[in-house]
Amino acid sequence: MTAEASGVFPIAATPFDDAGRLDEASLDRLTDFYVESGATGLTILGIMGEAQKLDAEEARLVVRRIVARAPIPVVVGVSAPGFAAMKTLARDSMDFGAAGVMIAPTPNLRTDDQIVAYFTDAVEAIGDDIPFVLQDYPLTLSVIMTPGVIRRIVTALPSCVMLKHEDWPGLEKISTLRRWQAEGSLRPLSILCGNGGLFLDFEGERGADGAMTGYAFPDMLAELASLQKAGRRDAAHDLFDAHLPLIRYEQQQGVGLAVRKYILKRRGAIACDRQRKPGGSLSDTARQEVDYLLARLARTDPRAAL
Amino acid sequence: MTAEASGVFPIAATPFDDAGRLDEASLDRLTDFYVESGATGLTILGIMGEAQKLDAEEARLVVRRIVARAPIPVVVGVSAPGFAAMKTLARDSMDFGAAGVMIAPTPNLRTDDQIVAYFTDAVEAIGDDIPFVLQDYPLTLSVIMTPGVIRRIVTALPSCVMLKHEDWPGLEKISTLRRWQAEGSLRPLSILCGNGGLFLDFEGERGADGAMTGYAFPDMLAELASLQKAGRRDAAHDLFDAHLPLIRYEQQQGVGLAVRKYILKRRGAIACDRQRKPGGSLSDTARQEVDYLLARLARTDPRAAL
Amino acid sequence: MTAEASGVFPIAATPFDDAGRLDEASLDRLTDFYVESGATGLTILGIMGEAQKLDAEEARLVVRRIVARAPIPVVVGVSAPGFAAMKTLARDSMDFGAAGVMIAPTPNLRTDDQIVAYFTDAVEAIGDDIPFVLQDYPLTLSVIMTPGVIRRIVTALPSCVMLKHEDWPGLEKISTLRRWQAEGSLRPLSILCGNGGLFLDFEGERGADGAMTGYAFPDMLAELASLQKAGRRDAAHDLFDAHLPLIRYEQQQGVGLAVRKYILKRRGAIACDRQRKPGGSLSDTARQEVDYLLARLARTDPRAAL
Amino acid sequence: MTAEASGVFPIAATPFDDAGRLDEASLDRLTDFYVESGATGLTILGIMGEAQKLDAEEARLVVRRIVARAPIPVVVGVSAPGFAAMKTLARDSMDFGAAGVMIAPTPNLRTDDQIVAYFTDAVEAIGDDIPFVLQDYPLTLSVIMTPGVIRRIVTALPSCVMLKHEDWPGLEKISTLRRWQAEGSLRPLSILCGNGGLFLDFEGERGADGAMTGYAFPDMLAELASLQKAGRRDAAHDLFDAHLPLIRYEQQQGVGLAVRKYILKRRGAIACDRQRKPGGSLSDTARQEVDYLLARLARTDPRAAL
Repeated sequence: MTAEASGVFPIAATPFDDAGRLDEASLDRLTDFYVESGATGLTILGIMGEAQKLDAEEARLVVRRIVARAPIPVVVGVSAPGFAAMKTLARDSMDFGAAGVMIAPTPNLRTDDQIVAYFTDAVEAIGDDIPFVLQDYPLTLSVIMTPGVIRRIVTALPSCVMLKHEDWPGLEKISTLRRWQAEGSLRPLSILCGNGGLFLDFEGERGADGAMTGYAFPDMLAELASLQKAGRRDAAHDLFDAHLPLIRYEQQQGVGLAVRKYILKRRGAIACDRQRKPGGSLSDTARQEVDYLLARLARTDPRAAL
Repeated sequence: MTAEASGVFPIAATPFDDAGRLDEASLDRLTDFYVESGATGLTILGIMGEAQKLDAEEARLVVRRIVARAPIPVVVGVSAPGFAAMKTLARDSMDFGAAGVMIAPTPNLRTDDQIVAYFTDAVEAIGDDIPFVLQDYPLTLSVIMTPGVIRRIVTALPSCVMLKHEDWPGLEKISTLRRWQAEGSLRPLSILCGNGGLFLDFEGERGADGAMTGYAFPDMLAELASLQKAGRRDAAHDLFDAHLPLIRYEQQQGVGLAVRKYILKRRGAIACDRQRKPGGSLSDTARQEVDYLLARLARTDPRAAL
Repeated sequence: MTAEASGVFPIAATPFDDAGRLDEASLDRLTDFYVESGATGLTILGIMGEAQKLDAEEARLVVRRIVARAPIPVVVGVSAPGFAAMKTLARDSMDFGAAGVMIAPTPNLRTDDQIVAYFTDAVEAIGDDIPFVLQDYPLTLSVIMTPGVIRRIVTALPSCVMLKHEDWPGLEKISTLRRWQAEGSLRPLSILCGNGGLFLDFEGERGADGAMTGYAFPDMLAELASLQKAGRRDAAHDLFDAHLPLIRYEQQQGVGLAVRKYILKRRGAIACDRQRKPGGSLSDTARQEVDYLLARLARTDPRAAL
Repeated sequence: MTAEASGVFPIAATPFDDAGRLDEASLDRLTDFYVESGATGLTILGIMGEAQKLDAEEARLVVRRIVARAPIPVVVGVSAPGFAAMKTLARDSMDFGAAGVMIAPTPNLRTDDQIVAYFTDAVEAIGDDIPFVLQDYPLTLSVIMTPGVIRRIVTALPSCVMLKHEDWPGLEKISTLRRWQAEGSLRPLSILCGNGGLFLDFEGERGADGAMTGYAFPDMLAELASLQKAGRRDAAHDLFDAHLPLIRYEQQQGVGLAVRKYILKRRGAIACDRQRKPGGSLSDTARQEVDYLLARLARTDPRAAL
């Protein structure tokens, strides 16, 4: 994982069985699914991966198993309430063969200095030899990082090689960072976009390197990235727009993961769509709405014909 | 304005001139624009209407002018930090001929009891003879109302005739409220949906009565409501999906109003798209993106050919 | 009101009668009470003054009446959701003879740049000829200003002449600002302390110029300021410690104002201790606790023998 | 640990050495210190115990060591972002011999139903055979529990035997819960008070059973509880008032722990007052202020003569 990373790093779900236990067979199948979808990397133990619902042993098991199986770089979410737990998981993950880690700020951070200090302390804890992804997700984390704060972090911490961009609105932030890089006041940095993919059509045009989100059609995300890279603007938008009704439906906070696991199950990537508590679930009506959206999408994209 | 209200009550923008003064000529033109778009009502002085940026005199002027001109019911946002100011604007608005008022909770409310007490006190302040719209907008207001709390408010306060629904996710909330009404445990209540219109395709199907949002194509919202009322599901979704890329772009917090005023200006509804401070503005790139979205939309919807 | 201001600027309560109307006779009596207590200035329409519960006309009435009567500088709280209302009240207040205004940030501000921009815009709105007090009250306003942000505001805006310091913990902030002034990197600025007075014993020692709080014994605050100025450390702490049980009791969020109005009434400064809604009230037990604290205090301070 | 528990359950600090490693010798000494201070129980791995800064192994080590040494009931804080980690620590702690666990709500909870559901899920996760303490600490956790919500939790979950009360203001909450118990609408429940001890003088009078806080003079807390139990009101207040200046100083968010560890070190209970990052520290001036407060206190309480 370097500052040149691009393409799609799906945020992986974590499969459980009906009793809420880790489903290791599905872990393997899901890993293969992402790889076959054209992912250039994989991000595990993120918020969508229900990382907080695993205990320390389980988290290690997930990392070990996926890292062993995936032929692509694996980024491990190591966000934690404290630095000791963050360090333990980060060091273990690298020992298992991970490519890097992802760190989100704790929700209590407010001022610019607090945010910069937090990442400085985090790197001091895990070691400056581990490449890390800076997660910028104000909607869920309630921490707001200006472009200037991101620059301070990137400049102070050479091991920061990637931004998981999910500010909202966030298009101007990408443009600002890229402009600073063009001007030479910010070193190179990979920018992959989250936020459920809701703005991927323009984020690529603004200069993002790809996607890091959990949309249940990572193969479509890979195709979108290819079209954007090839400069085929209209085709990229056509593809994106066809998926937008479902992307939008998946991007509902809380409900989204239930939709994603439901579709991943229907696509054969996992055996069971159960979440651990606290987790959302789909009402019958919601499931029918997802089916309806899939059926409409299948008119133009055969991948949605499930 | 009654519990039977339906259709589209656009959230009106407030036009300013280049110097930041109220533009009264544009107020008239914009009012006509909404009426000609098929609006069944009009909501003014909402968040999108920059209500907080007007002083007390200006707010009164806006109400008086629009109420005098619009041949449809006008709802006036009277949310205020305190009940005295809320009362003054509410009573004045009704004197001018408004149909009702809209009240949002103050952001500090947390517990169920606090929320119910707030609306009880608000009605005590403005008087129980003024029909009011309950605004449920957690994303911006950070107040979370369960369906049970809404039922407590509606049951305790007969002057509550409408819910401005903009919870996110919010589809199950509509279904729950409608089920309670079917069961007889909740009296009739109009539900109009906000949230930038991002879920209007399904909200109508779940039982909502229409839209109360500021999307710059209120005429499309009216058409969508008609298609839904007529049971033409696929046609409704086709129309919605064509607009979704723009709806989504407009729904960016902060940026959205700049997009809306820009399009309203291009549609001839207002003379100037300036916001008062603090307000967003569109970069050149953003404006080009909106133009691109309009051009794409115009392929199927001639209203977007500006 | 200048950067040399010192002593005690009590935060004035706003007296209402039993029906919730402004009690103008008590306004006069309360003004006299503060003046006779040794106040060097007066701060009206603050949070404790229930400013948010007045409508625009009432606010003007309060300003006019108090400014006309008080022979000391009067600072008017003009914090408002928008700049137009802030400007109207600020300009009117200065016309009536106020010495300056006080501005708190809106609760949604997060980043350093947002905070600085807010005060820049506020001064642009009200005019740079009005001396203003910067209110730094994170506990209630949830806006956190580092010393660096305060320096940016003070440096950029010459009309900022005073800091109402109520950060918590906040002692180091005072020391930092005073050190910067000693070093010449921050211009002179009056610092008056709020936070219910809970740390006044040390705040003066750290370099604060006095108090701006609503404690019901402003005469004690004035005496404390004198003792500190005279370098009588032990005597100052003895006085402070005797009052601390009551200061602490008054500093309960929400309840505090009920205690203060109760004591102000018992001291004869206002006729009625009613608050407008939403407001706290004292249970019988709470009232007895206050009476007990007063009785204990009266053993050493005759002012508390009510 | 039962619903009849009373007296003082100090919140234990966690001692580290200068390199930030757990200091096991100090763990033993500190345990003895609390026991010799008259504690009737001990609460470990709370917020003040820097629980979040330990990894899973370290947390287990602390529990095992303290439980093995203390001849009094030990409550273990098991609050965690997810239920799997909470369960693992809770089960392990009980295996080691703990008397019960303490659970705080996660900061994102808002509505009454969300809070009740959270504790229901937590008990389902850890098992209903583990007695637990409900932590009610809105200031830090930003979760507001009405008395009604507490009653719902206590009624639904028989394993809830104690309330760690640190609402602020919170006196009326104690009175309400006790009144409900007197009326028979709430089963017996131990109430121990936190909030830095700032209101312990009245909390006991309102019906609380004692203290659960980390004030560096647990021996004074035990004495206060005895005086209150003996009905010696004035003597209790005299003791409390003498300590209040220091209690207040310690109750500064963030700074408080630095003060406590400093005093615990001076009292010989721990070898080093270092905190893990992110942690506060005392400036020279702050240390001198604490020394000054200790010297003043020592005039009436020889325990403070360090």
